[in-house]
Amino acid sequence: MADVNGTRMDLRSKFLNVYSVLKSELLDDPAFEFTNESRQWVERMLDYNVPGGKLNRGLSVIDSYQILKDGKELTEEEIFLTSALGWCIEWLQAYFLVLDDIMDGSHTRRGQPCWFRLPKVGLIAANDGIILRNHIPRILKNHFRERSYYVDLLDLFNEVEFQTASGQMIDLITTLEGEKDLSKYSLSLHRRIVQFKTAYYSFYLPVACALVMSGENLDNHVAVKDILVEMGTYFQVQDDYLDCYGEPEKIGKIGTDIEDFKCSWMVVKALELCNEEQKKILHEHYGKADPADVAKVKALYNELDLQGVFAEYENKSYEKLITSIEAHPSKAVQAVLKSFLGKIYKRQK
Amino acid sequence: MADVNGTRMDLRSKFLNVYSVLKSELLDDPAFEFTNESRQWVERMLDYNVPGGKLNRGLSVIDSYQILKDGKELTEEEIFLTSALGWCIEWLQAYFLVLDDIMDGSHTRRGQPCWFRLPKVGLIAANDGIILRNHIPRILKNHFRERSYYVDLLDLFNEVEFQTASGQMIDLITTLEGEKDLSKYSLSLHRRIVQFKTAYYSFYLPVACALVMSGENLDNHVAVKDILVEMGTYFQVQDDYLDCYGEPEKIGKIGTDIEDFKCSWMVVKALELCNEEQKKILHEHYGKADPADVAKVKALYNELDLQGVFAEYENKSYEKLITSIEAHPSKAVQAVLKSFLGKIYKRQK
Repeated sequence: MADVNGTRMDLRSKFLNVYSVLKSELLDDPAFEFTNESRQWVERMLDYNVPGGKLNRGLSVIDSYQILKDGKELTEEEIFLTSALGWCIEWLQAYFLVLDDIMDGSHTRRGQPCWFRLPKVGLIAANDGIILRNHIPRILKNHFRERSYYVDLLDLFNEVEFQTASGQMIDLITTLEGEKDLSKYSLSLHRRIVQFKTAYYSFYLPVACALVMSGENLDNHVAVKDILVEMGTYFQVQDDYLDCYGEPEKIGKIGTDIEDFKCSWMVVKALELCNEEQKKILHEHYGKADPADVAKVKALYNELDLQGVFAEYENKSYEKLITSIEAHPSKAVQAVLKSFLGKIYKRQK
Repeated sequence: MADVNGTRMDLRSKFLNVYSVLKSELLDDPAFEFTNESRQWVERMLDYNVPGGKLNRGLSVIDSYQILKDGKELTEEEIFLTSALGWCIEWLQAYFLVLDDIMDGSHTRRGQPCWFRLPKVGLIAANDGIILRNHIPRILKNHFRERSYYVDLLDLFNEVEFQTASGQMIDLITTLEGEKDLSKYSLSLHRRIVQFKTAYYSFYLPVACALVMSGENLDNHVAVKDILVEMGTYFQVQDDYLDCYGEPEKIGKIGTDIEDFKCSWMVVKALELCNEEQKKILHEHYGKADPADVAKVKALYNELDLQGVFAEYENKSYEKLITSIEAHPSKAVQAVLKSFLGKIYKRQK
């Protein structure tokens, strides 16, 4: 497999080159008459919001496709097309993050102020989110319109966007309800939120893109979808855990799930394990901005040994995932899934 | 033509029935596991935002399709499918309005508080807008997936959404720039904004849907697009005029374009016609909330006889449009376009 460091660096720089190509095309889209101001606006908005993340989702389209090709070297065209699909996922992510930050009233993202916090931007950011979203079908049309699987790509992106937005909706509604009554939070609700809000677009979508480009019909890959959604759920539980116990320098932010009344795996697990007295502490102190309240919640998490509970959850999830993966008939697909799992198992950031 | 009153009422009620069918399907979409709360939320959100408008855009898909069929009676299936496309346009409109109202800080819409102003909703409305948008490909997939023109519909809706969002973007950016320097507003900029922000989705899209369903290739109908975009521009100029001179009871709102510093046809025309002294008045009083400032701007509009200028613009636009329409080779297409024009010519609301 060509995943040695040199090639990886090379792929990453090729991937970044594709970003420049796609951006240029979008800034000259014949479907719209740009003014100079609007062209500059879009360019600045893209550079600020699209390429600044870890790019894991985007890069994994290329990785997955290469593994499906048994590690054979990709042609320049294959690298370009898998990169373009990878960037579509990064664009999708940027779109969700720009809008989520507005809805959550967040302050920073990827170590810089949220886009909507910039003085000249404000709520124009909502429309910028829409523009980001609209770039995806423009990219797909520019590069895949003549491919037999074009319509499958449109359907795939539409379905996954719908699932993500629906997951975001139950997250938002749940938080509203939870603020009135914390006991509405449950493990099954948490599971449903993270499955739809995170797992589909972060885990299933990259592999699905690679499968479609390999000529596969996604209807035949329900098992792959289930495994990836499971993996995405595990990933989000890690996220919830790191929000509380991760090192801010490593995870790039200071967690505020407790303050924000989030339906996090941590609080859900705490609710499941606590006695009546501890439950009162949670109800009293969860979702408050005062550091003294936050400290009480964290002390309770420690009392319940959520670090140990998480370590056990992590081991069990890993074992279950490996078992499911090894049950898959295709060795190439197994390799794709194991590569994904390897990237996130016991991650610290 | 079957546009006599009885049939029209009948079509309208059939159209509304299709809304209920589409809504039920969306509330049971197998791609998402609804909770009871989220299903209720979506239903309430749809009923609040989708069917409450004049429904002109949606109904005109059915009308246009029928005219293209030389007025022959439509089958139940044709009525259902044209209605479904009509509703996709109404959904698109609802999506834009929900988000525009957030960005503009509006208070009322269609005679009721804006969705995001409801106490329980707030900024969750941004995600609701996204949900509305995502319903469009769900509806298309449910009812057109097996049709030969499915991919053309997806491309069409994607392109028009992109154009609308881009128009909204230059409108927002222009207002930012205009606030610093009113003289940035010009007739050509106004034209570009309204063409992209309003004309494509309100005028071109309904007819394009009808053409695609009739088996036409849209690449062969650039002339139709140009005429409809021209008509949409005229429609928006009427809107800008009515914002100032329309009767609030008829137009359903109290215009605030002057207060909001909008790049309206009125101010653009005033800038074109005024002398240096009058220009100073505009620069000093435009875009201010104080009724005394607004009154000064309106007095200037009267001084410049913008009512007369508008009447002349309206007549000239009408003549030009009729000339372009009659140059079209197909009598059926001519009839579609004249029917559209007839609906808006000299409208008071």
